[in-house]
Amino acid sequence: MILTFTDFGREGPYLGQLEIVLHRLAPNVPVVHLMADAPRFKPRSAAYVLAALAHDVPDGTVFLGVVDPDAGAREPLIVRTGAYWFVGPDNGLLEVAAAHVESAAWWQIEWRPDDLSVGFHGRDLYAPVAARLALGMTPEAAGGVTIERVPVDWPADLNEVIYIDGFGNATTGIRGSQLAPTATLEVSGRRLAKAEAYGTVAPGEAFWYVNSDGLVEIAANRSSAAQALGLAVGDPIRF
Amino acid sequence: MILTFTDFGREGPYLGQLEIVLHRLAPNVPVVHLMADAPRFKPRSAAYVLAALAHDVPDGTVFLGVVDPDAGAREPLIVRTGAYWFVGPDNGLLEVAAAHVESAAWWQIEWRPDDLSVGFHGRDLYAPVAARLALGMTPEAAGGVTIERVPVDWPADLNEVIYIDGFGNATTGIRGSQLAPTATLEVSGRRLAKAEAYGTVAPGEAFWYVNSDGLVEIAANRSSAAQALGLAVGDPIRF
Amino acid sequence: MILTFTDFGREGPYLGQLEIVLHRLAPNVPVVHLMADAPRFKPRSAAYVLAALAHDVPDGTVFLGVVDPDAGAREPLIVRTGAYWFVGPDNGLLEVAAAHVESAAWWQIEWRPDDLSVGFHGRDLYAPVAARLALGMTPEAAGGVTIERVPVDWPADLNEVIYIDGFGNATTGIRGSQLAPTATLEVSGRRLAKAEAYGTVAPGEAFWYVNSDGLVEIAANRSSAAQALGLAVGDPIRF
Repeated sequence: MILTFTDFGREGPYLGQLEIVLHRLAPNVPVVHLMADAPRFKPRSAAYVLAALAHDVPDGTVFLGVVDPDAGAREPLIVRTGAYWFVGPDNGLLEVAAAHVESAAWWQIEWRPDDLSVGFHGRDLYAPVAARLALGMTPEAAGGVTIERVPVDWPADLNEVIYIDGFGNATTGIRGSQLAPTATLEVSGRRLAKAEAYGTVAPGEAFWYVNSDGLVEIAANRSSAAQALGLAVGDPIRF
Repeated sequence: MILTFTDFGREGPYLGQLEIVLHRLAPNVPVVHLMADAPRFKPRSAAYVLAALAHDVPDGTVFLGVVDPDAGAREPLIVRTGAYWFVGPDNGLLEVAAAHVESAAWWQIEWRPDDLSVGFHGRDLYAPVAARLALGMTPEAAGGVTIERVPVDWPADLNEVIYIDGFGNATTGIRGSQLAPTATLEVSGRRLAKAEAYGTVAPGEAFWYVNSDGLVEIAANRSSAAQALGLAVGDPIRF
Repeated sequence: MILTFTDFGREGPYLGQLEIVLHRLAPNVPVVHLMADAPRFKPRSAAYVLAALAHDVPDGTVFLGVVDPDAGAREPLIVRTGAYWFVGPDNGLLEVAAAHVESAAWWQIEWRPDDLSVGFHGRDLYAPVAARLALGMTPEAAGGVTIERVPVDWPADLNEVIYIDGFGNATTGIRGSQLAPTATLEVSGRRLAKAEAYGTVAPGEAFWYVNSDGLVEIAANRSSAAQALGLAVGDPIRF
């Protein structure tokens, strides 16, 4: 299975063109567009989102991560964490997923396609490598050279808003396991208590809870917490 | 075939995560995202939309309907209508599709996954059941227990706007078969006549017609009828 | 492979309903939604976008193009250009792709489905024909009758903005091969130089470059060129 994780949005031909390359090179591998609205141009926030999504997928799954401001300015990388593969730029996007496991392995991608466009390395470079890994090729056969890496010194949990979804829920980089159920969370000058379910609070009331990917999330019943509290990606959280 | 019908929007990982579960559990069954912008938090309006879409799909198709305010507060259900399956919450979403056939059969889903998240029963509970039905398992084997039901007393046709699409067309809950071609439709203080085709009216002019799913729809040639007439989901229609 | 190219947007059931028809009639053929936000109601602009996207796809690929104002008012067509097929309305949408090759072949589609809806010929008429071509049927078997055609006299390159993407990049109808790297491009009263890569200009600075489909595109590093320069589809470009 190949899962795309990008900041392209659904507009334009970009996601479709990724998918065409994947189907051509790995014809029988399912491709799912996991997320197309990763925090745009914010690989650090996106890294915490991506790490949280890397669970309950089949062994051998390849996460194709393209959040790549200055398109193509960074080296392309492969990471293996347990049974999952990640392919993406060396701008921090893959660091948090790698930090979540004991012994991530890293490769730098030295392969280059004959025709590498200026703006779309996702299609021309990352997608072919992802397809090869999904077919069971080794990272070396896929174009990688093994490297040693000092992990970046980002915290295991990021006390910030890392994503705002279409409902106006604000996901934080804090794993739910790190926060006591009685904790009060402070954001944007407001203090929020935990709720066990959406239906237990009045419509419009803001609260925090542990979302379906294990992260602390700020929500409001049937309305937009982000709008009500004026939240944006990067806003600090205190507790 | 499994068809998702949700109010999630295309933002975030939600639709992708549904699809991953379906691919894992029913690997060779096609999954199509039929609609991701069902009327949000409005299971009654959504029910009339869903019922209108349930035609011309292969026998055995499973409609996975997730319009679920108060996420998970209602019992999960399976309905069989003729050769189609529906899976969704007991909040009215499946009622209209069921009312359209002589003898719908109902099951309550008693199965629960080991890890049921607070906010995402679509992924954790509904999708696995939909996958099992798509594989040909019986409702009982899929986790259901047969129940008797008194249908809700909603009308067969709903004289309201039930959906506004990306073109600004306003779908109503009225089946085209119920309206004479000479009928004048009244909405938002305006009276509209029927047009046989988009091209037969001047650009910008509003009219009604029977849409491609058999429902009366208010449209304007090359412009947004909803904007021109100030329409919203729930607005009453008279004729 | 079948690639959909439409102006429907992702809203509503429309794209899903196209996909259902394609899966029913051509069960093992991959379907990719290449673009759902082609310039709405602008088949001429869309024609230049579509032509630019018709590269690096497998032989036998079918482009299903539905940009069809006055839904269904024009005759439906099949075009073969080299190893690719195009299906769409006779409103100019397929002309530029056809003009790009020496000897395009044209068929008019005379087949009509039993139930042809007023508004959705994409689903009822174009999709079944596309599915048949994707299965390897001849254009005649798919419902077409061969015709002779005088090509429309549109220029090979269109000195206009033809598309604005989700990043605010403005694609033009000018092939990159037609413009010297030293050329200065004039649009909206501003003069722009070429940049070799996004990262070589300051954030916010506008420039032109040759995009990943070979077209001249106006962009700004990490911001919206379209917004900064007030660009819209149809705006003239001088150089």
